[in-house]
Amino acid sequence: MQRIYLDNAATTALDPLVLEAMMPYLTEKFGNPSSIYSYGRESRLAIENARKTVAKLLGAHPAEIFFTSGGTESSNTAIHAAILDLGCTHIISSPIEHHATLHTVEYFQQQHGIPVSLIRVLPDGHVDLSQLRDLLAAHNGKSLVTLMHANNEIGNLTDIHQVGEICKEFNAIFHSDTVQTVGHYPFDLRNTPVHFITGAGHKFHGPKGVGILYINENVQIKPFIHGGSQERNMRAGTENLYGIVGFAKALELAMTNYEKDSANIGELKAYMAQQLLKEIPETSLNGDCFGQSLYTVLNVAFPKTEKSEMLLFNLDINGICASGGSACTSGADLGSHVIRAFNNDPNKVAVRFSFSKHNTTVEIDQVIAKLKGMF
Amino acid sequence: MQRIYLDNAATTALDPLVLEAMMPYLTEKFGNPSSIYSYGRESRLAIENARKTVAKLLGAHPAEIFFTSGGTESSNTAIHAAILDLGCTHIISSPIEHHATLHTVEYFQQQHGIPVSLIRVLPDGHVDLSQLRDLLAAHNGKSLVTLMHANNEIGNLTDIHQVGEICKEFNAIFHSDTVQTVGHYPFDLRNTPVHFITGAGHKFHGPKGVGILYINENVQIKPFIHGGSQERNMRAGTENLYGIVGFAKALELAMTNYEKDSANIGELKAYMAQQLLKEIPETSLNGDCFGQSLYTVLNVAFPKTEKSEMLLFNLDINGICASGGSACTSGADLGSHVIRAFNNDPNKVAVRFSFSKHNTTVEIDQVIAKLKGMF
Ligand SMILES: Cc1ncc(COP(=O)(O)O)c(C=O)c1O
Ligand SMILES: Cc1ncc(COP(=O)(O)O)c(C=O)c1O
Repeated sequence: MQRIYLDNAATTALDPLVLEAMMPYLTEKFGNPSSIYSYGRESRLAIENARKTVAKLLGAHPAEIFFTSGGTESSNTAIHAAILDLGCTHIISSPIEHHATLHTVEYFQQQHGIPVSLIRVLPDGHVDLSQLRDLLAAHNGKSLVTLMHANNEIGNLTDIHQVGEICKEFNAIFHSDTVQTVGHYPFDLRNTPVHFITGAGHKFHGPKGVGILYINENVQIKPFIHGGSQERNMRAGTENLYGIVGFAKALELAMTNYEKDSANIGELKAYMAQQLLKEIPETSLNGDCFGQSLYTVLNVAFPKTEKSEMLLFNLDINGICASGGSACTSGADLGSHVIRAFNNDPNKVAVRFSFSKHNTTVEIDQVIAKLKGMF
Repeated sequence: MQRIYLDNAATTALDPLVLEAMMPYLTEKFGNPSSIYSYGRESRLAIENARKTVAKLLGAHPAEIFFTSGGTESSNTAIHAAILDLGCTHIISSPIEHHATLHTVEYFQQQHGIPVSLIRVLPDGHVDLSQLRDLLAAHNGKSLVTLMHANNEIGNLTDIHQVGEICKEFNAIFHSDTVQTVGHYPFDLRNTPVHFITGAGHKFHGPKGVGILYINENVQIKPFIHGGSQERNMRAGTENLYGIVGFAKALELAMTNYEKDSANIGELKAYMAQQLLKEIPETSLNGDCFGQSLYTVLNVAFPKTEKSEMLLFNLDINGICASGGSACTSGADLGSHVIRAFNNDPNKVAVRFSFSKHNTTVEIDQVIAKLKGMF
């Protein structure tokens, strides 16, 4: 059976060109970048070139880019630093953040007694930014605002420029989880009022186990992981050399082909949305699907029927990979904290389809045909 | 010029068989292990099989093995947990620990006011275990003892069974940095009185960017990195799938060939030591080289001469990779915190040669010949 992979927001296939770029470092070029001999310096050079590439593509300075083990570690580091190093005494976040943010925020709430305010979510899945200024004004100390750029379940995009400008007014620290947009969206960080953003290679056809943390040059933080002097003393541990090389290559490919890929993928999303609305009665879309929304993510609210309760399971049987929520780990539809935050309709089943450059209209047609038989 | 790589304690070449085991996961098998469809479950299965393999090889339960981004993160997690979750109010360590331990310990000393006692180091580079009981007895609360198994610079082995038994008497938590011994040494953790040990794939011909933390089933800790429910809620973040598969494969190869490889490598070390002592006047060895010492590491104290001050540099020019200290990042011999802890002879230059199964006697002879010309 041919597999149809529509879960690209969970993870993506490694691009063969990325693997090709990684291969020398998986074979002969294995030197430790911290070594003083030329063979180690070659590895150091590969890392510094990767850093320059990433910085350039994001409109940042190389000194602002730090390689980590992934998006989760990056967000943990940023939130940790905002509280412990930058003096934030209050956190503003939203109920639809990824658990990498939410659970870290909860940790600081519970273990450090940091008050947390969660911004209201509107029925279209957008956070109510009109509330942000009020929340910032209501707190007397320095706040950390952590709001994601694109939501991984519904695709809604938040205007990080707007958030950043409001944060500036209140001298707040702004961290944005950009794991779903780095590699999918153009960035110009030099002109974006944000202190921290995060990225994960495996979300844009790069390797797993590697991510970045952008730290604006104007903030000084201490490391989260202590040890050797790697990453200019900011992230200890022998570097994931091929991961770093692969991250940079994947971002380069993603940005080179951004116009073309985003247009194609966006069309697939629109096509699938239209077909679903047409072909499956009582189906609607979660989030601001045709508005401020990422072109890669489509979240569908299917009517709940006896058959549709097993929807993901039935899709799986048909070789179709889609997801119910970000951290759903059993066959049952446990529901998602994101969907629940703005739409708690017990008569709907939410399924996320997420696309990549590898998907085709033919695949979408096949999925629609299968889905029709499931209602 | 042929390169002679004698810095295997810094990092090792990825074994082609390990890369082969990783390749399916670097290409078609990229599914997210947290996904509910069968394609994701294949990835989950690969991870759980890797965990079982690692557990079996170390004599542990699969539930005691957690995959991390490397040895540094593992040690950070263990020390963090001992203080914040297990109630340790005092740390006992040694001045010759790796910075992954020392800098984490310093962090808790400075930021959390945790008192730290460093065990005395004897002239042969061994920690003076007779002092351990006194230090434990002198503190009224629960202590964390963090002592490495094999020192990465001088190779000295500490008897972790003995340390563990003493810790038991005082109800102390025992963490051992075993990054230089996992994959180089047989473990039987079910019969080893230790709460935490750590490993890093790249030290035994496995991949970079992946490590393990063993957490004894009798201790319950909270995660260090917060987010998704990966690693049974203990280490959030999309798993480094191929890294984990590669780690297990590398450990399997290492343990399968342990008898043969350790004998051969040990002979190389002994041979090089003897040749150096014979051929280069006033040379001595740092640490307990022929005693309780890892077969992979040879630390040599060369006489300081005008030429030998540039020793590493001159070795490099001749294609020979060796190291001066673990975190030495410039061409100058900055000295090492390990060597300084027991031997502060200003008339000596310390160089570490560390071996793997890929090294040969012919290489050693070539290095000796070159070295003779440098004095
Ligand atoms: C929005 C968002 N943030 C953070 C993460 C965490 O990234 P990772 O799992 O690579 O650490 C993910 C993906 O899992 C995500 O989609
Ligand atoms: C003894 C010891 N502990 C910890 C580490 C840290 O491991 P890693 O750099 O893989 O995180 C190393 C190697 O760098 C080491 O030799």
